[in-house]
Amino acid sequence: MTLATGIPSDELGARRAALLAHVRGLGLTGFVLFGQDYIRYFTAFEFLATERPVAVVGNGDGDLAVFVPEFEVARVRDETAFERVESYPEYPGLEHPMRLLSGVLSDMCVGAIGADENGYPGILGYQGPALSEVCGRPVMPLAPFVESLMVRKSDAEIALIRESARWCEHAHRLLQEYSHPGATEAEASLRAGHEATLAMLGELGSSYAGQQASSDGVTAGYRGQIGLKSAWAHAVAHNIEFREGDDLVTETAAPIWGYNAELERALVVGDPTDEMRRLYDHTVAAQQVAFDALRPGVTCADVDRAVLGYFEAHDLLPHWRQHVGHGIGLRNHEAPFLDIGDHTRVEAGMVFTIEPGLYADGVGGFRNSDTVVVTPDGIDVLTDYPKDLESLTIAV
Amino acid sequence: MTLATGIPSDELGARRAALLAHVRGLGLTGFVLFGQDYIRYFTAFEFLATERPVAVVGNGDGDLAVFVPEFEVARVRDETAFERVESYPEYPGLEHPMRLLSGVLSDMCVGAIGADENGYPGILGYQGPALSEVCGRPVMPLAPFVESLMVRKSDAEIALIRESARWCEHAHRLLQEYSHPGATEAEASLRAGHEATLAMLGELGSSYAGQQASSDGVTAGYRGQIGLKSAWAHAVAHNIEFREGDDLVTETAAPIWGYNAELERALVVGDPTDEMRRLYDHTVAAQQVAFDALRPGVTCADVDRAVLGYFEAHDLLPHWRQHVGHGIGLRNHEAPFLDIGDHTRVEAGMVFTIEPGLYADGVGGFRNSDTVVVTPDGIDVLTDYPKDLESLTIAV
Repeated sequence: MTLATGIPSDELGARRAALLAHVRGLGLTGFVLFGQDYIRYFTAFEFLATERPVAVVGNGDGDLAVFVPEFEVARVRDETAFERVESYPEYPGLEHPMRLLSGVLSDMCVGAIGADENGYPGILGYQGPALSEVCGRPVMPLAPFVESLMVRKSDAEIALIRESARWCEHAHRLLQEYSHPGATEAEASLRAGHEATLAMLGELGSSYAGQQASSDGVTAGYRGQIGLKSAWAHAVAHNIEFREGDDLVTETAAPIWGYNAELERALVVGDPTDEMRRLYDHTVAAQQVAFDALRPGVTCADVDRAVLGYFEAHDLLPHWRQHVGHGIGLRNHEAPFLDIGDHTRVEAGMVFTIEPGLYADGVGGFRNSDTVVVTPDGIDVLTDYPKDLESLTIAV
Repeated sequence: MTLATGIPSDELGARRAALLAHVRGLGLTGFVLFGQDYIRYFTAFEFLATERPVAVVGNGDGDLAVFVPEFEVARVRDETAFERVESYPEYPGLEHPMRLLSGVLSDMCVGAIGADENGYPGILGYQGPALSEVCGRPVMPLAPFVESLMVRKSDAEIALIRESARWCEHAHRLLQEYSHPGATEAEASLRAGHEATLAMLGELGSSYAGQQASSDGVTAGYRGQIGLKSAWAHAVAHNIEFREGDDLVTETAAPIWGYNAELERALVVGDPTDEMRRLYDHTVAAQQVAFDALRPGVTCADVDRAVLGYFEAHDLLPHWRQHVGHGIGLRNHEAPFLDIGDHTRVEAGMVFTIEPGLYADGVGGFRNSDTVVVTPDGIDVLTDYPKDLESLTIAV
């Protein structure tokens, strides 16, 4: 049911009500949202973000308007539930869209205002005045509050993330199958993504959304973490050919109505060396330490500290490169972070990746990433993929 | 030669020298760049932009430093030419990266400072203090100057855009071949992108860069502009099945060392109606009006006005939705814009898309986009694909 419709409209309404209550509590009479992810979070409106500003405006009476370039009006009326659609001819146009937005705010009796950013962000060469400048008054920042809403996922959101996990698993199986000595990362990744996307579209049919381009769907690949470059936690792809003895680190994504899970595995081409096996086994054990530590009431820092304690006890700190994990949802990385510097209190409904890795120059990198949701008394692991090194060894 | 190396290092150095001269002219002692596209423009450094801040810092003596999370240091030393690599352990970490960046600025004797943004942008839930806050002084905005540098393309840049055009053409031929009644936009787009990317990687080999994920390469598709939805200039995909009588609008992309051309065509499945043919023919004529108007010395607004004049003379203004085109280069849309509100003077070396479209509810949308470079006495069209409607008709 959720899969057929994305987030139900009453849940979107509840999100907006929470924002409005916060805005009123600050003594403001309305809000403006410019961020594409935030607009999607509160309204499920999907659009191609370009240099042409898009905004969502709400006032104290609960009226909601979307502000788009004129060419989007027909689509917005057809595909969204906005009752009020305001538009401007073009960007930059004869009158700057931000000036026209200021007129919309006046019409909606929005005076004292909050916004996620003080103006449309400067993407693709966009330039324009700050919102505070066109409104002639200060703009209160709302992004921290919006982020605080996004961290706790509802049952509907968790169902979408669970479905995403299922397709990440499918694509990962294909990726592993197509990765063999002589093949390249591009070949394996393109084939896995192509087949997995068609399989997903075939099963979810018209219920699937989250695409912008026709080819958007499931992806699985390596981003260059192949051979010794697997020791670079955020390598970039170079169309590398797999060779016997390579250590690999994968990545997958499958946005379902925009919601993401993350599944990553270390793979080895041919028999792993003893040092590979030793480091790999420690990442599995460290992930279990994090699973055991994560529950409502602890802080994000506590979880990272538990894993750092494990690494320290086993003399592995020289191989540490990244914190334990990050929040995930409408964005494939988001706050809070399982990091010694993030003192956010963990609550049921938060969704995290758990991916403590070990990286050794001259050997490679080892990282399994699983997506978990915090439950009232612990966690549920949403991604299901083997973790024994035999299952992750590519035969040569 | 350019294809094997991307932008030559002396050209990157000249870009940085121009920025530094501007910075000195403002009485500043250094600059900070946070934007991923700007960092790529001045240094060719490719990275995965996340909630972990990345910055490039330059001082008045011409020293250059990159500021990255610790796990990027080994890769940066291996894959880039930065002599000075500064890092922080993690984000958010025990000390906020922006505080550590402020220390780097002090070490480099950067006092009065300019930056593309006043702090790292709030992507993926990143939160942090403004640069002006950690430095205790105002920060001069540099983005408008950087944009003004990026609008004129060098011979090396034009060569990369020309190569991009070639792969857009190849992918478009495949897309057209795989688009037939009963197929879906996802099927045609995935197949075309998959094959075109492997062909490109096979030909360019290790000289190709511009990938982050293993599957990045050439794309071709529709983004939902199919049937009556082709009248929505920025539709989003819905995995629609092609049917006889459909009007389609395509899109393609093929970043080569990050540089893009754009090629788009209107297609018709089966015989076009008279009204389709009439509107299509007018878009071809309007594009020619723009080709004829674009040359050094005119303004961007002049070109848009010429096309609007053509539409007005033929009673087509009700079908107008978008300005004539946009700059293109390291970003698939960028300033300046061929728009009546953009008074930028056209210069040789500027690269634009020329894509005047006509959109009719109940009929469909018609838009051909070609990429052109301005020459001393006119333009060169970089994209080469048929435009006669017979060549763009899909047999049924």
